[in-house]
Amino acid sequence: MKIDILTLFSEMFAPLEHSIVGKAQTKGLLEINYHNFRENAEKARHVDDEPYGGGQGMLLRAQPIFDTFDKIAAKKPRVILLDPAGQQFNQSYAEDLAQEGELIFICGHYEGYDERIKTLVTDEISLGDFILTGGELAAMTIIDATVRLIPEVIGKEASHQDDSFSSGLLEYPQYTRPYEYRGMQVPDVLLSGHHENIRLWRLEQSLRKTWERRPDLLEYYQFTQEEKQLLEKIKSEGEGTS
Amino acid sequence: MKIDILTLFSEMFAPLEHSIVGKAQTKGLLEINYHNFRENAEKARHVDDEPYGGGQGMLLRAQPIFDTFDKIAAKKPRVILLDPAGQQFNQSYAEDLAQEGELIFICGHYEGYDERIKTLVTDEISLGDFILTGGELAAMTIIDATVRLIPEVIGKEASHQDDSFSSGLLEYPQYTRPYEYRGMQVPDVLLSGHHENIRLWRLEQSLRKTWERRPDLLEYYQFTQEEKQLLEKIKSEGEGTS
Repeated sequence: MKIDILTLFSEMFAPLEHSIVGKAQTKGLLEINYHNFRENAEKARHVDDEPYGGGQGMLLRAQPIFDTFDKIAAKKPRVILLDPAGQQFNQSYAEDLAQEGELIFICGHYEGYDERIKTLVTDEISLGDFILTGGELAAMTIIDATVRLIPEVIGKEASHQDDSFSSGLLEYPQYTRPYEYRGMQVPDVLLSGHHENIRLWRLEQSLRKTWERRPDLLEYYQFTQEEKQLLEKIKSEGEGTS
Repeated sequence: MKIDILTLFSEMFAPLEHSIVGKAQTKGLLEINYHNFRENAEKARHVDDEPYGGGQGMLLRAQPIFDTFDKIAAKKPRVILLDPAGQQFNQSYAEDLAQEGELIFICGHYEGYDERIKTLVTDEISLGDFILTGGELAAMTIIDATVRLIPEVIGKEASHQDDSFSSGLLEYPQYTRPYEYRGMQVPDVLLSGHHENIRLWRLEQSLRKTWERRPDLLEYYQFTQEEKQLLEKIKSEGEGTS
């Protein structure tokens, strides 16, 4: 995958040199190029200006973004603008982006940007209902979630099959050594060596957590017969204790 | 505000040295301390181990986190664990965190962590329904959204009053010079100098965008009489063109 990032702050992207995204670049599975659009600004590197109609703050001008964009050689890329009014990013969005060969990210900063920049864009994405000082952290977050889904980036395919959301359920609790720590013990079933009991306990924990915390995820979930029965049991227990 | 971050990858936090969060530190409004819990791991800096009951991947052990936590001097801090099964972060969550004097972030990595770590935690927060390679980017994003709300961090108080979500509506389109760029013109009302018309146009654009993209935000919105009438107009136009 090739990723081009239009940003005024390429030095903010250090996190992408580490961990799994860093390794993907070392392995040659990913290429990231940074484009500081200040370098393409006419009028003495002038990237922002006051809003027409008045108002606080400065807006990114269209010209530096358009001219930088023209210099990026790309065939039919997905062009992503980070905007709190965009479509909510989620795991299936990450899976969709992970199929692409080329992504371009436009990172805003300051108070906003000239609306005409949106004519370059295929995807307006929001990370969530909150405001950041710029698009850089949102872009890095989306890149991290996407790149780890590219085949061969994470060694063992199995390690995302158990992720929350990939299965449609939240993840069950996990424990590692020691058996007892500060008075807290690991549930005995996990030490039993009885694989079927362990599987059932984990499934029940996942279903219970999802039902308690995120019942919305169960609305479209494709239940197996076993899961249906487990959930009924969890619900009836819940009624008993309330 | 004082922020303590428990992480194996403090070098990933470079983004917090830039932009508004960096300036908040320079101004003395914010202090961030990084704690690499590998340094407190017993058994030869051993931070992870296999899950009880079997399964792919490695889990963070409880001991290095607990012992690092004990060394941080803090009175009643909010302790935040980044977890996709946590409560969804949003602007009002950021406003709540911005009131605190001390925050502690625990950043997981690898496949997960020992469940007993949660006994230290006051807030399990999710950035959204997607999986990241670690908690670091989520922590930085939450810190960025929170720190910009601390009084005096952003110079002009006014500059967050117009944010999407702060008003309860998505932001209206903005434009800056030139008037015409690549054949695209700025809406004439914004050049009219007629403040009341500009205000009305912007309000209508905000309402229209929110209604089209995020009708869920309008469910609990406190409408003024003027906004109610504008929204009725927008809705009737929508019906006319569909």
